[in-house]
Amino acid sequence: MNSFGTLFRISVYGESHGPEVGVIIDGCPPGISLSPADFENDLNRRRGGVRKGTTPRTEADIPIFKSGVFKGKTSGAPICISFTNSNTRGEDYDRLKAIPRPGHADWVAQKKFAGFSDYRGGGHFSGRLTVCLVAAGVIAKKVLQSEYPAIHIDAGVTELGGMSDIDAGLQKAIDAKDSVGGIVTCTASGVPAGLGEPFFDSAESLISHIVFSIPAIRGIEFGTGFKAAGMFGAEHNDPIINPDGKTETNHSGGIVGGISNGNDVIFRVAVKPTSSTPKEQTSMNMETGEMETFSVKGRHDLSIALRVPVVVESVTAMVIADLLMQNERVRV
Amino acid sequence: MNSFGTLFRISVYGESHGPEVGVIIDGCPPGISLSPADFENDLNRRRGGVRKGTTPRTEADIPIFKSGVFKGKTSGAPICISFTNSNTRGEDYDRLKAIPRPGHADWVAQKKFAGFSDYRGGGHFSGRLTVCLVAAGVIAKKVLQSEYPAIHIDAGVTELGGMSDIDAGLQKAIDAKDSVGGIVTCTASGVPAGLGEPFFDSAESLISHIVFSIPAIRGIEFGTGFKAAGMFGAEHNDPIINPDGKTETNHSGGIVGGISNGNDVIFRVAVKPTSSTPKEQTSMNMETGEMETFSVKGRHDLSIALRVPVVVESVTAMVIADLLMQNERVRV
Amino acid sequence: MNSFGTLFRISVYGESHGPEVGVIIDGCPPGISLSPADFENDLNRRRGGVRKGTTPRTEADIPIFKSGVFKGKTSGAPICISFTNSNTRGEDYDRLKAIPRPGHADWVAQKKFAGFSDYRGGGHFSGRLTVCLVAAGVIAKKVLQSEYPAIHIDAGVTELGGMSDIDAGLQKAIDAKDSVGGIVTCTASGVPAGLGEPFFDSAESLISHIVFSIPAIRGIEFGTGFKAAGMFGAEHNDPIINPDGKTETNHSGGIVGGISNGNDVIFRVAVKPTSSTPKEQTSMNMETGEMETFSVKGRHDLSIALRVPVVVESVTAMVIADLLMQNERVRV
Amino acid sequence: MNSFGTLFRISVYGESHGPEVGVIIDGCPPGISLSPADFENDLNRRRGGVRKGTTPRTEADIPIFKSGVFKGKTSGAPICISFTNSNTRGEDYDRLKAIPRPGHADWVAQKKFAGFSDYRGGGHFSGRLTVCLVAAGVIAKKVLQSEYPAIHIDAGVTELGGMSDIDAGLQKAIDAKDSVGGIVTCTASGVPAGLGEPFFDSAESLISHIVFSIPAIRGIEFGTGFKAAGMFGAEHNDPIINPDGKTETNHSGGIVGGISNGNDVIFRVAVKPTSSTPKEQTSMNMETGEMETFSVKGRHDLSIALRVPVVVESVTAMVIADLLMQNERVRV
Repeated sequence: MNSFGTLFRISVYGESHGPEVGVIIDGCPPGISLSPADFENDLNRRRGGVRKGTTPRTEADIPIFKSGVFKGKTSGAPICISFTNSNTRGEDYDRLKAIPRPGHADWVAQKKFAGFSDYRGGGHFSGRLTVCLVAAGVIAKKVLQSEYPAIHIDAGVTELGGMSDIDAGLQKAIDAKDSVGGIVTCTASGVPAGLGEPFFDSAESLISHIVFSIPAIRGIEFGTGFKAAGMFGAEHNDPIINPDGKTETNHSGGIVGGISNGNDVIFRVAVKPTSSTPKEQTSMNMETGEMETFSVKGRHDLSIALRVPVVVESVTAMVIADLLMQNERVRV
Repeated sequence: MNSFGTLFRISVYGESHGPEVGVIIDGCPPGISLSPADFENDLNRRRGGVRKGTTPRTEADIPIFKSGVFKGKTSGAPICISFTNSNTRGEDYDRLKAIPRPGHADWVAQKKFAGFSDYRGGGHFSGRLTVCLVAAGVIAKKVLQSEYPAIHIDAGVTELGGMSDIDAGLQKAIDAKDSVGGIVTCTASGVPAGLGEPFFDSAESLISHIVFSIPAIRGIEFGTGFKAAGMFGAEHNDPIINPDGKTETNHSGGIVGGISNGNDVIFRVAVKPTSSTPKEQTSMNMETGEMETFSVKGRHDLSIALRVPVVVESVTAMVIADLLMQNERVRV
Repeated sequence: MNSFGTLFRISVYGESHGPEVGVIIDGCPPGISLSPADFENDLNRRRGGVRKGTTPRTEADIPIFKSGVFKGKTSGAPICISFTNSNTRGEDYDRLKAIPRPGHADWVAQKKFAGFSDYRGGGHFSGRLTVCLVAAGVIAKKVLQSEYPAIHIDAGVTELGGMSDIDAGLQKAIDAKDSVGGIVTCTASGVPAGLGEPFFDSAESLISHIVFSIPAIRGIEFGTGFKAAGMFGAEHNDPIINPDGKTETNHSGGIVGGISNGNDVIFRVAVKPTSSTPKEQTSMNMETGEMETFSVKGRHDLSIALRVPVVVESVTAMVIADLLMQNERVRV
Repeated sequence: MNSFGTLFRISVYGESHGPEVGVIIDGCPPGISLSPADFENDLNRRRGGVRKGTTPRTEADIPIFKSGVFKGKTSGAPICISFTNSNTRGEDYDRLKAIPRPGHADWVAQKKFAGFSDYRGGGHFSGRLTVCLVAAGVIAKKVLQSEYPAIHIDAGVTELGGMSDIDAGLQKAIDAKDSVGGIVTCTASGVPAGLGEPFFDSAESLISHIVFSIPAIRGIEFGTGFKAAGMFGAEHNDPIINPDGKTETNHSGGIVGGISNGNDVIFRVAVKPTSSTPKEQTSMNMETGEMETFSVKGRHDLSIALRVPVVVESVTAMVIADLLMQNERVRV
């Protein structure tokens, strides 16, 4: 399904090498000022080519408002924002059509869509689509800012290539002429207690649902996460120490019973190494049935993890905005 | 939201100490034979009291068919199944009303529901609700069995209290007079390639969404998971070695680009230590504002992880059944 | 799909001659007092056997709270309410199994569900299910009452057997030994302007969606309705005459552009004559392929229209409550 | 909500005088050939300026494929189609900002969206959006055509200005210098039995839901419709006369119990007279609080009913395609 959300809802479209990618944001309250400049910072953080280790393919990434913005403010109608795919080079991929790249969606896409999938650059499965998530996230953040200015969401790379020194992790990839994975940690502070809709829309459920929509994500853990599995109960439990629900420790990552408890919401996301690596690899040529050795040319990231934080921030902002809106119903 | 699923959809209701808990399963194909005996094995696996380390509270757990089953077969109408809460002891919890138990949803439930939440035994947030998931899973498994007999879903505890020897992990909890967490690993083999609905309903998105609805889950990872973050691309990529998409390795856990690739779907789930521990703990008395020391009496599990595998299996079966049904639309 | 609604959501289950029918109401705010007595009046209005022209099958129709109500108030968790089917006589229908009754869902139910449908008394397609809608409506009305006491919803039969004198219409049926249809008119006053969610969830869209879930409904029209098709624009337009949107006339039925405009919401619903008529009818015997003449024995209504008003009121209350909740998101 | 559908799902965006309007179609099977020429006929039928009585505002209405079409065929990914708003004249509406036009959404739009709504030409509430429905309908029809070639959907104006002679009805409007309403009748033949998803997604529920999204619709009736309310049961019931469910009469309009029964699906839709009439009208000036007399200049239809049939056909095709896809799940 190409839509996500209950009251703050987004729908995406587009392929890596089609004319454009875009997103409709439905349910955004009216009256929020919005200009292309609002998107600049987050789009830059996502964009490749601005930093060592990210792809030299640089789209201009200018958000084009197609609807929902009137006289510089959201109008209440669905907001459509598109991004032109100006810097595509379809020919890079033609040679690889027969040979599905390992780690990529090439093979499953053809399988799912009976051979009709747009294979250029991953088509609809491309990380290019995350520019839509960032755009929607900018709006979600503005919604939060206007009514819940205390909420701050911040994500960053905390591990790269298995190392907590990120530069060293990147150097490791450069030295190995290979790509590396990483860990992204996200913290949302100022989140009011009470967000999450049992039984199935726990805060973790919604966050993980949309986080796993981001290409290259392999795992997610909240609070102490996998380490919790090795702990004792008395050690893991977070004692409540004030009437606002503040806890002494925060092993739960700010979510208990699927509901935010007013403490920092913290989670970590595992990003796999970029599938497109300069290293030689093998895969089956589906036309000949022979194994072939090749290396992916194109323009790619040494570690996609470097571009993921702003995307994680964006989807987190959307989920929080949506849950806040749903929570309002109690006021009726 | 108390519902989950697109074509195979479930809705749950009930509280730990109310008269019953139950589930409606909507979208189950007609003509599948169904009797209480079909549920016995999975319900036993979930039930406490049958094994060292699980709670002595034992519900009879007899599934009562309220609708949707006619002459021993599913009729096509929504199937409602309930379980009577026969073995409740409300008084155990009355003393704890003022003192929200650390690690439990007690405090957030009152916060979310403005003080009106049923606090007895966790109310709607209780693990008791997972009996509904198991019941729905039994039906999902029968749906799979009738049309995709090659699919086998199997989950088990692979780590307890930080140890891969499960008995040793349990003994560790007994010795420490505390509860412990664990890791549950789930493998689904025989899953056809092509399941998952981009952009937002990736197979991982749907599985993680419902897995995080299960109380006490703190993390999930697919395939190599968090380890992938420390790997090189050429090392992590799974070379395709036959025309059916079989890969040499399976670091991706059978899901690429959010779509099943025909290899085993594998994921691991982190279960936190049971919040109710015999150990002494402290929490704030919300009536007096004083910190209090107490220990949870009641009847509880040394490790809830021991009861989680069948629940994880169940929700996985539901997601796979739903995705198979959605995939059928291509046949139109 | 057995669910309806976005924030105030209901799911139903059950068959006419199964053990019970029931409904889960999800999203009801906590703290609303609720007792079986609250349901009495509306359930009586729906129930047969209390008035000339309605079926002598009288269920006790005692609402049984299975969840979501704690200490006499809604707890915030899903509310499950069931009604026991105490007064069933399965044998009445056995003879008709082979001969699908004209006007009933007998034949389509078997077709849709591949012959496995519960055929007794219409099974899941029975009007019996409307008791669930009335129960959910009682709660919706209480939600409205607690926050929008100005809203009043009132539905009644305004035509029976083609006559505006209802008693005469009923006598017409009695004289003809046949069933008759009728018109139900519903007015909701005090509805705030601004309800409706474009583009697809217009107020008319949501009301008509759920109204057509009620068995036996053949048409719906808002305001002047079908008569509008024969009017001039200047005649049909409602001039706005005060700053609150009050209009001089109300041809639009209180909804313009899919959004409530603060005037009375008015719509009319066409109810077909009860399909079960004492009159002789013919239908094909599906086992023999022969046409057969028969008359439906059982216990049935001379005009189902008499029981429909409270059901229409109930579903209208649900839609308004849901739209009010959704509208709250603007406050975020 | 700006989305509709379960498996065949559409999302729309745009305003009358914004840069473009558009639609995303999600869930379309891959491999269906699609070119702009496929849209020509239906877009022409909808377009004004080609026939007496319709608005001289003529958009070129060239569908622009933004995604989901690859090498002339649907790729399986979401299909985004946009239409440029080339022929807008914003200044026509500036004078009317303060004076909400009777019958239009002007006032409710400002009310709902707190004064931030795009008021030019009705903004998001404009009939301009129906071009999106027609585009989605073209695709839905192609889906049906490829697998269910027996299905034919046909809608036409059967009454205009209260007259069954359409030309006479139009002349009536011209003579009166006013707009008129009309009746649109839609017939879908070849629809297989079994479509509709109880309890809430009856075929009538889904059709009416989306039909009432079309601006200017005031009523809908299936089969005999409102006339059924004045009939006897034995007269209204349709005797089944063959094993395929063929009925002697078709008072039910091909839908019984919310499920298609294999006979023609027939329904009628009431279209109100175009709100923009050349006639003088009065409305309140919201800035001065005075009533003002004015006549709408702009370019408008004498009867919007003339443009509605193809829109009704389109949304009917979508609903049928979606229900067919959902019905496939039984095959799992």
